[in-house]
Amino acid sequence: MYSSSFRPEALLRCEKIQSALRTSHADSILLNTNANLYYASGRVFSGYVYVPAEGEPHYFVRRPVGLKGDTVHYIHKPEQIPALLAEAGLPIPRCVALEWDASHGDFTRLAAVFPDVEVVNGSAVMRAVRSVKTNYELALMQESAVKHAEVYRRIESVFREGMTDIELQIEIERLLRLHGNLGLFRINGQSMEIFMGNVICGDNADSPTPYDFAMGGAGLSCSIPVGANGSLIRPGMTVMVDMCGNFTGYMTDMTRVYSVGELSAEAARAHACSIEIHRAVARMGRPGVAAADLYRLAVQIAQDAGLDDYFMGHTQKAGFVGHGVGIEVNEAPVLAPRSKELLVENQVIALEPKFVIPHVGAVGIEDTYVVTPEGMKAITSAPIEILPLQ
Amino acid sequence: MYSSSFRPEALLRCEKIQSALRTSHADSILLNTNANLYYASGRVFSGYVYVPAEGEPHYFVRRPVGLKGDTVHYIHKPEQIPALLAEAGLPIPRCVALEWDASHGDFTRLAAVFPDVEVVNGSAVMRAVRSVKTNYELALMQESAVKHAEVYRRIESVFREGMTDIELQIEIERLLRLHGNLGLFRINGQSMEIFMGNVICGDNADSPTPYDFAMGGAGLSCSIPVGANGSLIRPGMTVMVDMCGNFTGYMTDMTRVYSVGELSAEAARAHACSIEIHRAVARMGRPGVAAADLYRLAVQIAQDAGLDDYFMGHTQKAGFVGHGVGIEVNEAPVLAPRSKELLVENQVIALEPKFVIPHVGAVGIEDTYVVTPEGMKAITSAPIEILPLQ
Repeated sequence: MYSSSFRPEALLRCEKIQSALRTSHADSILLNTNANLYYASGRVFSGYVYVPAEGEPHYFVRRPVGLKGDTVHYIHKPEQIPALLAEAGLPIPRCVALEWDASHGDFTRLAAVFPDVEVVNGSAVMRAVRSVKTNYELALMQESAVKHAEVYRRIESVFREGMTDIELQIEIERLLRLHGNLGLFRINGQSMEIFMGNVICGDNADSPTPYDFAMGGAGLSCSIPVGANGSLIRPGMTVMVDMCGNFTGYMTDMTRVYSVGELSAEAARAHACSIEIHRAVARMGRPGVAAADLYRLAVQIAQDAGLDDYFMGHTQKAGFVGHGVGIEVNEAPVLAPRSKELLVENQVIALEPKFVIPHVGAVGIEDTYVVTPEGMKAITSAPIEILPLQ
Repeated sequence: MYSSSFRPEALLRCEKIQSALRTSHADSILLNTNANLYYASGRVFSGYVYVPAEGEPHYFVRRPVGLKGDTVHYIHKPEQIPALLAEAGLPIPRCVALEWDASHGDFTRLAAVFPDVEVVNGSAVMRAVRSVKTNYELALMQESAVKHAEVYRRIESVFREGMTDIELQIEIERLLRLHGNLGLFRINGQSMEIFMGNVICGDNADSPTPYDFAMGGAGLSCSIPVGANGSLIRPGMTVMVDMCGNFTGYMTDMTRVYSVGELSAEAARAHACSIEIHRAVARMGRPGVAAADLYRLAVQIAQDAGLDDYFMGHTQKAGFVGHGVGIEVNEAPVLAPRSKELLVENQVIALEPKFVIPHVGAVGIEDTYVVTPEGMKAITSAPIEILPLQ
């Protein structure tokens, strides 16, 4: 299933899942979405991972052929799982956690595999487990962060006068891919669709999208109405670059702003306010602090600066200022007013206090941070000021 | 919700859905996945489309702000839907179709919105409706097909000696994007993840993937173990290009093969066999013909040529030779041995008889066809022979 060097990490993740199961009602979990298969086994495959209350995970594999391991079982259909568990000497679970985020069809089929067994929400279990990263995961996120920042430092080199937002985005996509970006932008749930990220210039930042985004963008098609819309990049506008950093299966999130010509004083002031929010939230963001308090701190700073009209969007506002990130871009915790979560050491959070200034565009930066006892430490490091394009 | 020019199309699609509902047990359908929202309303938004047994669809919108129309209702949560339906003079349904493909969490919440109402599988209803394209949809698919082929005709121009598979893929991705490709590769269900398509060279074609693919590829990461793996493109190898054609919200599927230097006679023979299968299947593929019979015809031709060992994969084989395509890449019908579907006029099918030849790579082509009374007509038109790169 995995290389011998990954074995200690696989066992550590298994222990984390088992520890979370002990605080839930379930005595086992059966995983079937790609993000959780990747977490639990170190690779994506077609099949299922079963983690019992005690002992090693069992891998039920449909494809690919050729995976090996003591607890790897090849199957044609999930209905074979109970007999194979019995053969392996494992009891039928009393209560199994299944993924609420899986399709209803898959969920229903898996629930029927264990008739008369209680079923609870396994997505909630995995969301909590995955929000706190292991050292192995932090190293992968660091690797993504370094490459992400490396590409951002080269954005000026691919800009040409007369470009549209989408033309610039395409060159940034190519740079990202040439630096090893895997392209795939993994998003939890089925509702949000984005392609590699967004480049937004000028008033397109104020076009509302279907999603809970501060900066929106009308997009190029009603089938994916978000992001670049073909606007010409012109003097007096900002260009906000918010592209995905999936270089390792773990994603970093990072936003920087560029300008062509002179910007309004208000845009510059709002950008400075975003940086001030970053410093204040990073200082306060320690283990045990409420995610909702960090949201309120950010809003307070924007209000004190008289910029709340533009904070986290203008025509349509986003309801958060930061979010967990890892295998997926929208993990726990969420820095939002109703969040019940307290920060935990080694959570990884993308903080994105942004402003939409009418007639100018979006300003503010986004960085990805690790929660430490000394506060949140940024891992995406690149110049934070508004950078001139040309 | 949509422009006035889209209104006749929106009503036609609504009638198609209502006609399918009449053959099911349901007297209404409530849609919430992006692909079906896009189908039913002409755009992606955050919310729900409710299609009653009779009358116009109602749109329940969370985001974006600003959508207009007589039957557009802004909501904060789906629990508001029954009261708004009552206000609009619509009865509470006797049986509602909900999407089995939606997450179990979403499904459960929507089912609870209509307590004491019977629930049936709405994904099956929509799969049948969407498999037969309207003229409006066919025009969008034609537009995608023309652009798709235009890019393929320029692939030779971006090849440089000494390139790896992924380097060539990145240049093709850029060409696609510059020609208007939206990037997003929409796949039904949650299990299959691909980024824009695949470029596979040499023996990497024989690396098994988690998916039901003829040509595989180890990929660059265990987090997305499919496609290009960084192999150097060398003489004697084939390079198979199978990239996504989403230029309009409707996708075409198309594969062409390139060679560097001389290929083995067996590879050339298998490629010719793929073309022969295309001709035979296209001739036979008329309304009323069983999808399974088309699969059997393809397999028979490969067997008669003594190439069945390599047909649809070698180490790991795919279980189909073609699939419906439209808003998503894996629509109905599927040309597979157990398919129960009969072809219907104006279905759109991607046919992909491929061979994996050890030590050479993948050969064969894929084209997207429309089912007509005279047979299947290809809409993706480009040279079909193995094209030399350099």
